[in-house]
Amino acid sequence: MKISQRVQSISTSPIRKLTPYADAAKAAGKKVYHLNIGQPDIATPPQFMDSIRKYGEKVIAYGNSKGEMPLIKAIQKYYKEKGMDYAVEDIYVTNGGSEALQFAVMSLCDPGDEIVVFEPYYANYTTFAKEYGAKINAIRTSVKNGYHLPGEKEIEARITPKTRAILITNPGNPTGVVYTEEEMEIISRLVVKYDLGLIADEVYREFVYDGKSSICKSFGTIPCLDDSLIIIDSVSKRYSACGVRIGCIISKNKELHGHIMKCCQARLCSPTIEQVGAAALYTTPASYLEEVNKEYKKRRNTIAAAIAKLPGVSASDPKGAFYLMVSLPVDDAEKFAIWTLENFSIDNETVMFAPGNGFYSDPNVGKNEARVAYVLKSEDLERAVYLLGEALKAYPGRTK
Amino acid sequence: MKISQRVQSISTSPIRKLTPYADAAKAAGKKVYHLNIGQPDIATPPQFMDSIRKYGEKVIAYGNSKGEMPLIKAIQKYYKEKGMDYAVEDIYVTNGGSEALQFAVMSLCDPGDEIVVFEPYYANYTTFAKEYGAKINAIRTSVKNGYHLPGEKEIEARITPKTRAILITNPGNPTGVVYTEEEMEIISRLVVKYDLGLIADEVYREFVYDGKSSICKSFGTIPCLDDSLIIIDSVSKRYSACGVRIGCIISKNKELHGHIMKCCQARLCSPTIEQVGAAALYTTPASYLEEVNKEYKKRRNTIAAAIAKLPGVSASDPKGAFYLMVSLPVDDAEKFAIWTLENFSIDNETVMFAPGNGFYSDPNVGKNEARVAYVLKSEDLERAVYLLGEALKAYPGRTK
Repeated sequence: MKISQRVQSISTSPIRKLTPYADAAKAAGKKVYHLNIGQPDIATPPQFMDSIRKYGEKVIAYGNSKGEMPLIKAIQKYYKEKGMDYAVEDIYVTNGGSEALQFAVMSLCDPGDEIVVFEPYYANYTTFAKEYGAKINAIRTSVKNGYHLPGEKEIEARITPKTRAILITNPGNPTGVVYTEEEMEIISRLVVKYDLGLIADEVYREFVYDGKSSICKSFGTIPCLDDSLIIIDSVSKRYSACGVRIGCIISKNKELHGHIMKCCQARLCSPTIEQVGAAALYTTPASYLEEVNKEYKKRRNTIAAAIAKLPGVSASDPKGAFYLMVSLPVDDAEKFAIWTLENFSIDNETVMFAPGNGFYSDPNVGKNEARVAYVLKSEDLERAVYLLGEALKAYPGRTK
Repeated sequence: MKISQRVQSISTSPIRKLTPYADAAKAAGKKVYHLNIGQPDIATPPQFMDSIRKYGEKVIAYGNSKGEMPLIKAIQKYYKEKGMDYAVEDIYVTNGGSEALQFAVMSLCDPGDEIVVFEPYYANYTTFAKEYGAKINAIRTSVKNGYHLPGEKEIEARITPKTRAILITNPGNPTGVVYTEEEMEIISRLVVKYDLGLIADEVYREFVYDGKSSICKSFGTIPCLDDSLIIIDSVSKRYSACGVRIGCIISKNKELHGHIMKCCQARLCSPTIEQVGAAALYTTPASYLEEVNKEYKKRRNTIAAAIAKLPGVSASDPKGAFYLMVSLPVDDAEKFAIWTLENFSIDNETVMFAPGNGFYSDPNVGKNEARVAYVLKSEDLERAVYLLGEALKAYPGRTK
């Protein structure tokens, strides 16, 4: 068989590519502190399994292609409470935010079309683009100004006749940036001016710190975006339910609805009982989300303080999500990550992070950077960063 | 926003496109007998929900991108029992057979590449091809010879430099054909000769009637296909678990493995608890499958006998799966289907089927055909076919 150029052009996930090394480390008896993947250690609200345990249908049957009504209604209510009025017709259940992104890319881009993103960005955006023959047009942002956006004219200059969408993560992954209202208005003006889609990945919406609000402002609150906006959402981070694989794609653009529906029909439907559980997740009391937010703020503070103590290491100052980008005094962060798993341990413990160059469109950029997920409890984060510091001291490829 | 040509070119599913009419009929108080969709009414083995109810992890976390080991091992064992030896590295869990097909198309085809199929075929093959810019090259088969394949030379003549795969459903959907060993050898010879992938959709493997075996011969038993074969499998039909959305893609082609892995990593993983339940499904006793097979044979006989009584209607004689194609004495089967839902009922009951032209590459072909799924118990099938017959008598667009 001949393998497609398309799939050959796709890179292995930087977040997961080192998994074989981690598995080998564990097989050798090491404990690995996972700072590489955004997998929270917080308990999933019990409502999820409780509702599933009660599920009594004798046939686990196909559901509706666009999703089951209890879940769609729950999503509708969630947004209503935040001042955003979506009709049932605007909301489509997907297999995680991942599939919502795939539907958005598929619906807006033909092969050769471009999607503007701000780098460093979530590595799988490149994968989704490549799956459908689209190209990522990445505009660089810098830790020097907290990964905030460049000016409007600078962004506008990067829009080409092939541009079909701006894909923005807010709060940002891996940067932890929370865009200002002014930045959101700039983006909104540009998508309307150039008739682009605005794919707003807002899965970390509740993970905001240091601001007045406990929730990130949504692009869904900006009126001029009704025809442009595609919201990507998910239960994964909000409810520590990453293994549930339930998200949604939301848009008021009526022309888009029928096309999303066809994407849904192609794969028939999302899993029935995951939707039962996900609908129950949306009944989780607000206090749960408040507690989670407090915990993550504490973790953010913990890891920031711990990393600040490491000589030669600098880090971003995240205001949202649960990642930060660190610059390491090493030749190559991926080599360092592998070395740390293969050759390093203290008391049979080591640490894993995601090499940073995978979050840039050019793999030669960010080679000494890493994305660190502060998804463990504070004591474990302190231990993990301690291990990172010791690994840096011992690593032969250390540069300063 | 501008919508992509790609998604605009995709047709609405013929199996589901009439759902709004069915919903309206039900809202008006009618009972609808669903012969349109391959959704069995047989109870899902209780092992599925039993195992899920026992699931005790506090965090529903991301799983392995290629799938959870208990499920992969269960799939491996299932194939081993049938004389097919697959390594764990050969098996990747997917979100249903649907996603397995998407991975196969994505991995073999660049935009403009072709996939040979035999029509009438499962309508979503066209959708998957279009999602990835590939083209279906459909070779016509005919009810006159039970939808068996044309000769080797005729198939060979249709292979072009752009052909990347033959996609074959065995047993067939919507035809119910079960290919002979000779036909399977013809296909095998051609894929090896032209270095094509052979995507073998075998999800109906246990649904075979009238033959010596209670299971359809798998392409996986043909040795020369080790590098060519991609098996598409699913729990949906075998275990009446369509809403579970768990399948797998299996291949011994080592070069392909890494590429499938990247497709898996892109969407992170399949749902955790569906995999728990699916692994338990594979422990369902053989007696369950034997009973199901007997029941479907009975249903096949029932519907064949009932349809034979309808004047002007001819039908295929399916040897496998649970569908048959019927030719109706109507101007347009889709119009007739809509009319039957909107304007017809006896004792407040009506019937729904899938318009047949959706199963051909050219929507102008098969306009008076329908796919009927014999997925209801025999009494309901008899009632449904009775209603179909009465609807035909009353339909203004009847042609003879």
